[in-house]
Amino acid sequence: MIDYNVPGGKLNRGLSVIDSYLLLKQGSEVTEDEFFLACVLGWCVEWFQACALLLDDIMDGSHTRRDQICWFRRPEVGLRGINDGILLKCHITRLIKKYFREKTYYIDISELWNEIALQTSLGQMLDLISTHNGADELAKYNIEGYRRIVKYKTSYYSFYLPVACALLLSGAKLENFSELRDILIEMGIYFQAQDDYLDCFANPNTIGKIGTDIEDHKCSWLIVQALGHANINQIEVLLKNYGKKDSTSVSKVKSTYSTLDLKDMFSEFEDRAYNHLVTSIEAQHDRAVQEILKSFLKKIHRRKR
Amino acid sequence: MIDYNVPGGKLNRGLSVIDSYLLLKQGSEVTEDEFFLACVLGWCVEWFQACALLLDDIMDGSHTRRDQICWFRRPEVGLRGINDGILLKCHITRLIKKYFREKTYYIDISELWNEIALQTSLGQMLDLISTHNGADELAKYNIEGYRRIVKYKTSYYSFYLPVACALLLSGAKLENFSELRDILIEMGIYFQAQDDYLDCFANPNTIGKIGTDIEDHKCSWLIVQALGHANINQIEVLLKNYGKKDSTSVSKVKSTYSTLDLKDMFSEFEDRAYNHLVTSIEAQHDRAVQEILKSFLKKIHRRKR
Repeated sequence: MIDYNVPGGKLNRGLSVIDSYLLLKQGSEVTEDEFFLACVLGWCVEWFQACALLLDDIMDGSHTRRDQICWFRRPEVGLRGINDGILLKCHITRLIKKYFREKTYYIDISELWNEIALQTSLGQMLDLISTHNGADELAKYNIEGYRRIVKYKTSYYSFYLPVACALLLSGAKLENFSELRDILIEMGIYFQAQDDYLDCFANPNTIGKIGTDIEDHKCSWLIVQALGHANINQIEVLLKNYGKKDSTSVSKVKSTYSTLDLKDMFSEFEDRAYNHLVTSIEAQHDRAVQEILKSFLKKIHRRKR
Repeated sequence: MIDYNVPGGKLNRGLSVIDSYLLLKQGSEVTEDEFFLACVLGWCVEWFQACALLLDDIMDGSHTRRDQICWFRRPEVGLRGINDGILLKCHITRLIKKYFREKTYYIDISELWNEIALQTSLGQMLDLISTHNGADELAKYNIEGYRRIVKYKTSYYSFYLPVACALLLSGAKLENFSELRDILIEMGIYFQAQDDYLDCFANPNTIGKIGTDIEDHKCSWLIVQALGHANINQIEVLLKNYGKKDSTSVSKVKSTYSTLDLKDMFSEFEDRAYNHLVTSIEAQHDRAVQEILKSFLKKIHRRKR
């Protein structure tokens, strides 16, 4: 179960812990033990991600993930896979106890993980609530609601968590890094908008899954923009066809996206988001903080998968 | 979601925290604040139970629970209910942080809950693994395997956890109470055997649910005993019909149970288990420990629901 679900991704989140830690320690020696601990936390982030994906795939009724069929779709697994997700999560706490029990920051790191787990579930709840009511709910989709879902569901664990782990490991106090946190959350929102774009427009072979955001009535960046720019007739088409499973409805939504030039709109959004992030990063005084943020931005800017 | 899933049970587990705490403090005054903290932990146990039942019902495909339809069967919920289970669990950690952050036993109580969560998921895993393979697996059911499943899946959280919470609250160290823990785990196994008996033989109106252990191929006390006492022909009937959903198969299993006098066998088991527990309890030197164990035993002995 662990071999099937934990490896196989790009490992961006896990590697971020190590990259960030090395940047924070710049100039001073990193012992083998310290490096090992950064690796432990990096893997914990990957286990967390594995748990989130495993359970999301069940809730969304997804079919493929990372070029293989979703865990719960294997005939010997089914809904029993829910408990496997829980097991993955329990082991994070266990790993943290095993390796950090004697550290001065043991309570801080435990509380960080608990907090992030709660925020992620709350984000998932916001996402699921907005997803499940048909046309009534769709008309309420807007950019503020979108940002709120993404902040909680994705940004905290994918962007803030790895850096927060590295900070604690390097002896820092998290309360001194709230600006860093806010920029990372902003970056997470940019990352998710890319994800939404790729879900609709990328080649499934490139991203390792077949996107179903339209069928699933997801509050995606694309539908939010479409609703914000469509005329009355186009809105009617979207309300009528969004969240339907049949390919005719999906095509109608996609052709409305095309008429509205969503590809260009996304390209402009990417430039704006990138420039805004660069400005925020350059305003940081801490050199290591700047470099961490730059390395994140470099990894995601104009990504194709 | 909380109102639907958390209240409505017998509250035995939650009340056990308070009962045990009062017994431990016998003689000395209990302040209003201390009583409140015992209530917080009591509710945490009930939230934990709510999470376990909610997710178990999804995995088992159950229909009713506590006289109402299972949460995930409500049309507006479905598999989204998985995230609700996770949310219930995250809030336990949050409540413990909120009320116990400044206590000397904060780390101990956090680790206790983490450990119990892991043990319960491991027990659930053992249960699910043994449940899913047809006749091959059935032939392997035996009392040792049964005890192992129940110890991890039920005893730790239903019997040990409430008392362990009360011990920490009263300033005790858990490592000094391993005999108490072992007796509580034994009591949990007795309790689960009752549960298995009631699943098959009790009136659904009395226990608030329609038992499906036979249909679900559960490693139940009854099937373990039946396999241990059946002749070759009866074993063949059990192997052929256990775990099938149709009522003819279920009837054949039940009539084999009846031929084997499982009701009487259970009655004898109850007497033996009770007497053995009484002996273990009387061997305890600590007066409060004795009284806690007696109050537990009194609540469950010969229970009908």
